[in-house]
Order: sequence, then structure tokens, then C-alpha cells
Amino acid sequence: MASNLASKEIIQQKLQQAASVLKSMDADLWVTFVQETSAGAERVFSYISPGNFTWESTIMVAREGKPTVICGRLDQQDFEESGLFAEVLTFVQDFKAPFMEYIKALKPRRVAVNFSLNDSSADGIPHGRFLYLESLLKEALPGVEIVSAEPIIGALISQKTALELAAIQEAVNVTVDILGEIHAFLRPGLTEKQVYDFVNGKIAARGLVPSFETLVFAGDRGSGMGHGAATENPIQRGDLVHVDMGVFVRGYASDMQRTWYVLKEGEEKAPDAPQRGFDTIAGAVEACRQALKPGAKGVDIDTIARSRVTSAGFPEYPHGLGHQVGRYVHDGGAMLGPAWARYKNTPFLPIAEGQVFTLEPSLTVPGFGAVGIEEDVVVTASGARYLATPQTELWYVR
Amino acid sequence: MASNLASKEIIQQKLQQAASVLKSMDADLWVTFVQETSAGAERVFSYISPGNFTWESTIMVAREGKPTVICGRLDQQDFEESGLFAEVLTFVQDFKAPFMEYIKALKPRRVAVNFSLNDSSADGIPHGRFLYLESLLKEALPGVEIVSAEPIIGALISQKTALELAAIQEAVNVTVDILGEIHAFLRPGLTEKQVYDFVNGKIAARGLVPSFETLVFAGDRGSGMGHGAATENPIQRGDLVHVDMGVFVRGYASDMQRTWYVLKEGEEKAPDAPQRGFDTIAGAVEACRQALKPGAKGVDIDTIARSRVTSAGFPEYPHGLGHQVGRYVHDGGAMLGPAWARYKNTPFLPIAEGQVFTLEPSLTVPGFGAVGIEEDVVVTASGARYLATPQTELWYVR
Repeated sequence: MASNLASKEIIQQKLQQAASVLKSMDADLWVTFVQETSAGAERVFSYISPGNFTWESTIMVAREGKPTVICGRLDQQDFEESGLFAEVLTFVQDFKAPFMEYIKALKPRRVAVNFSLNDSSADGIPHGRFLYLESLLKEALPGVEIVSAEPIIGALISQKTALELAAIQEAVNVTVDILGEIHAFLRPGLTEKQVYDFVNGKIAARGLVPSFETLVFAGDRGSGMGHGAATENPIQRGDLVHVDMGVFVRGYASDMQRTWYVLKEGEEKAPDAPQRGFDTIAGAVEACRQALKPGAKGVDIDTIARSRVTSAGFPEYPHGLGHQVGRYVHDGGAMLGPAWARYKNTPFLPIAEGQVFTLEPSLTVPGFGAVGIEEDVVVTASGARYLATPQTELWYVR
Repeated sequence: MASNLASKEIIQQKLQQAASVLKSMDADLWVTFVQETSAGAERVFSYISPGNFTWESTIMVAREGKPTVICGRLDQQDFEESGLFAEVLTFVQDFKAPFMEYIKALKPRRVAVNFSLNDSSADGIPHGRFLYLESLLKEALPGVEIVSAEPIIGALISQKTALELAAIQEAVNVTVDILGEIHAFLRPGLTEKQVYDFVNGKIAARGLVPSFETLVFAGDRGSGMGHGAATENPIQRGDLVHVDMGVFVRGYASDMQRTWYVLKEGEEKAPDAPQRGFDTIAGAVEACRQALKPGAKGVDIDTIARSRVTSAGFPEYPHGLGHQVGRYVHDGGAMLGPAWARYKNTPFLPIAEGQVFTLEPSLTVPGFGAVGIEEDVVVTASGARYLATPQTELWYVR
């Protein structure tokens, strides 16, 4: 859908980034090969396309930086008018003819294609489409080498430009405002679902959409983090209440969590157990932010938080410490996670300047509920910087 | 997103259809293998899943019909509570362990996987994910055969159940209502964009969303069918005006077109040229409906309309006659189209009872604009039936 496409300026910057990574990979051409995209397209598509394609189409970036589109005739005008592409080649009956002509003229030795065994955000081309593309490339150039475009897509995700950072910052600012509104709204007796509806109403009132399904958990009654949605479970005095939410602004996401304690009659502060849970998480977030800098490894940052949680006597959380945020709330590329098989090599990819990560350790305090703080940080040359004032105190609902 | 998931009853019917096709293919297991789905999943996913997966997960249907899910622990409760699956197996660190255990116990000889060289709606698994799945299957069972799940996905698309047909019928009914509202609204001086906004407002007022981007074309001023969106081009007397629109009702789409002629001062009817264009298209639609029945071939139905348009002296339209409509506006599977390379084998797949197709030939009348009628029809044992009263007269704007 149009609203999920990036601005022209960002697309131009992404096409330039792609050309520069192509050179460093010693590859000659990057091919993104899609079918009708209005019903959904692979993730990287939204970084590099100003519109949707009706039939099978490619966006290609050659090493020297000339981006080319091959698309159906009905789409020609939109892509030409975008001014982003050196050439827009078209067809009516068969994609193959203009594609083969282009490939035979360019004669690429190494072609980068969107598949990856590691990073699902770079694993975009469907298997049948890959087989077809491979057969066309080998027919045109029998000696051609096909390589994974993972480094290109990783760079597009990781190298956030000033325009991208500005959009994410605005998404974070809106999220902070809404978290403040939630703070004023929370009271015992509200169900998780009522809080969920309140949050989504506040997002919609700003003309925005959530960057993922808002999560609301109250207490430790089996409806905690193992449950995928808000329920009719009512907030009770003595509960921990936990909200996980974000919004899209100009196609870029925020992703934040805050935790409240609902004071019992006569209580002026939280009991020791939930307070200790909160302090463990808040301390872990800040320790990770301090360690997160260019050249660090995601797996090591994850270990800092994970070992603080387990050595404080809480069970290990069943997810990674943090992920990149951008065009998607889980943006792919390098992550801050443990060396678990399901994360493949992504916790070992290098941390670099310009990346935006979440820091989101969590734990459950038996009898009280879940504690989760999630901060969004940007990696700069001198270290990681919070995009919003972090939560350092447990917030009270009176 | 939740709103794009089918009802539980439909999912149950689709899982049963899948098991029955598996038997006819002499295959033992169908595997749909996805990554985090909230940011988008392959098309068939919405037919068979009651919720979203957070990590890599499978929905599997075994020959004897027992559907099984393997998913991350955080998603377990949602999938168990759906009651649709015989087993919900979970993991935290590595998908591989429960998957291998399941495969080694089942010992399938032939496994159907979602890739296709023909039908992009059946080409869902990303290439890297396919390589990973293939390596797991071959490690568990060295002799296993991996085959395309195209026949299963084609059946899920094509064999519309009564519940699916009821949702499509309701989407068509709403569309007919809105087309009537457009008829009352159209007048010279309105821009394409104003009509577009009117249509989308009428859709939103009903709490629905468009099944695709609404198209509005007025006149023959270069902003016709080659342009992807409504523009500031104003409707003028003497124009043909053409609207292409649809809505989703309970996750099922409609897709219809109507054509108007804007009478000039003093005109009581359209001039000969646009009238002849309209009659050509209306006649082609009805001739195709009469020929469309179980056992027919899409390519032959397409030829009926195409040859009527060209033998009336109009240029051949650059698209197929019609496509299936369902969970997606372009639903995939068998289509009514010419033998062009970009349609692969889909115009040769069998027409069967229960399929819902569009019939949408089009042409341009030089100096006047585009003529397009699009009817939605369901194939029954005795032939194709219109889901709404077809447009048989050119509608006038006075």
C-alpha cells in the first residue's frame, strides 16, 4: 500500500547505499524481482520502490549506481515520473525479453539476489521465482555467479540516514506522549482490553497506525507475556501493569514498553519484590546502553542483560534483548540476542553507527506480573543515545 | 493483521480441503513454513492460520488430516485456544528440535512445499527458507521427495465454500450500492481525485476497506488506463468515465467496473463511437459468461472476448480477461487469460465448480476514454452466474 512506501528522498539514498555495498562486495548487479506487489511484497521492496507493480517486475541497481526498472506497461508512467530510475523498461506479454536484453548488455559477473539463510528480512525472493531468475541469468550468461544480497539489505536497514532518524524520533516522541496519556488513564478495574482500546484510540486520533499490535498485561494471572493479546482480565490493586506499543510516522516505527505498579490501599510504594524486579530491568537497560557502541557484538550486549536478570534470581526471558527498528518494527539485520539457533548469525553481525535498536529485557515477578522496559536507542560514534527519557522509576497507579 | 485472517469455520474447511488434495497427489504432508508473520506472510497463510506467529513456525497438514502447528512458546496459547490443530508443539531456542521429532515420527515419503514456477500465489516460501527446510527434511529422511504444493493452494483458492461465497456476495452487494451512489454523484467538473475520495469515503463510512486501490479515469487525455491513480483531471462533457473498485467483507473481496458517458449539452444519447465501444464490451462479457463452465479452459474464454474487441476494430487490451476473486482481489490459481509468457500455465488450469472469476475486457475509444465493465461470476455445475445485475446499458451523466 502507498502508505507503506518511503519518501522519494529516502529511496534515492537507499539506492545509493545499495550501489556502494555492491562495490564493496565486488558484485555488479543487485536484482529485486517481485510479482504483483499491492497484495504484499518482500520487506526490502518498501525501501527502494516509489509505487506498486502490477505484474512481475524488477528493480535493479548496477555497480556504477544506475537504477533500472523493468515493469508492465501499465506501471510505466508512475515509475518514470518518480525520477528515481535511469531507465524504465516495459513489457506487455513477457518480462523475459527486456530483462534478457538488459542482462546481455550489462554482462554482470556476480549478481546479488534477495535470499539468506541467516536474516529473514533479506530472504525475500520466493523459491519458484528464484529458480526462474536463475534460469534466465544462466541462459543469458552461463558463467554468472549468484550471491546473497544479505550485505546490501543489511546496510539498507542499518545505515539510517538523517531523514530516517528524524521519522523514528517523531514516532518515539508520539509514543512518549501516549504513554503519558496511559499513565493518567490507568486505574484498578479497567480490563486489559479497555487499556488496549484506549491506546489504539489515541494512536488513531493522531491519524497514525500502530507499528505492531499493542500489548497490555495486568498481574500474574496466566494472561501475561505468554498470551498474544489483551484480554478481559481486569487491573487489580497489587498488579504490575505492562504496556508494549509503537506507531508508524512517515513509514518508520517506534517500539517502547513501560511498567506500572498499582498501589494497594495504604501502600505508598511498591513491595520489595516488584521493586527489585523493576530495578533489575532498569539497571540492565542502562548497562546495555553503555556497552552498545560501534564494533560491539550483539551477543555480548545481550549477555549483559540476561546475566543480570538470572543472577538476580529471575528466570531467563525467552527472547532477545533487542532488535533494529525502522521501516518495520522488527527491522532485521544485526540483532542484540543470544546465540540461539533461531537467531542464526544475526547476534554476531557488527554493530555500527546509525543503527537504531530496542533494549527490552523482561522478567516476571511471581504473584505480581511482568516487568518490561523497552527503550529505543541510536548507535553513534561515541556510543548509544536514548531517543527518549528512559524509565528509571517504577510508575505508580494510585 | 488479524483483520486479514479468515474465520475459524473457513480455516477448518480449508485444512480439510488440503488433506483431501494431499491424498489425490499421493503426498503425505503439506508444510507451510513462515517467519514472523505480523509484518506480512505468504498468501496462503491467511487461509489456514487463526493468528500471527512471532518466530519461525510451521502449519502442517498430514495426509490423514491431522493439522499440527510448531511455533514459539509465546504463541502457543492462541493456537491451542483456536481448537483447529491436533497438536501445538513449541520451542524457545530452536525450531529444529520439535520439527525433527515430528518428521522422524511421521516419516512422510512426499512432502508438499509452497513453491511454484507457474502460480505466484502458490510461490510463498522464500528461497533461503526453502533451502533450510530442504536440509532439515533430508537430514531427517534422506530419501524424502519434495514436491510443489501448487495443487493444494490452487484447490484452497478455487473450491469456494458456502461461507466464502456468502462473504464475496456481500462484498459484491456493497459494491453495487456504492456504484449507485457514484452514479448519483458524478457531474462534469469533478476531478478524478474527487470521485476517488468520494468512493473511499463511502467504503470507510461502512466500516470497510477497499480490496485494492480504487481507479477513476475520465476522458481520453493521457490519464487513462496507463496511469495508476486518480489525478486532478476534471470530468468534461463528452467524456467516458470509468471506475474500478471493490471492498473486503469478512476478508473476502469484490472487484467491479462500471462505465458512464457524460452527455454534452443537447445530447440525449452517446455518440456512435463510445456506444459501439460499450456494446462491444457488454457483448463480450455476456458471451464469456455463457461459455464459462466446468471443464472449459481459461485461454479459450479469454479468446472469445479478445477477438470480439479486435474484430470490432479496437486495439487489444494489455491484460487478461479475468482472474479469481477471494481472500485477495487477484486470488491466483486458474485464470482467464491469453497464452502470454507472463501468465505461465495459469490460463490452462481447469475451470471448476465453485470458482469465482471477474470478467473484465476493456478498450479505449479514441477521443472519449476507456470502456470497462467488470462483472463477478461464480462457476456452477450448469454454468456461470452473475453475482450482481450486469451493466448492459451505458450509464449517462447529464
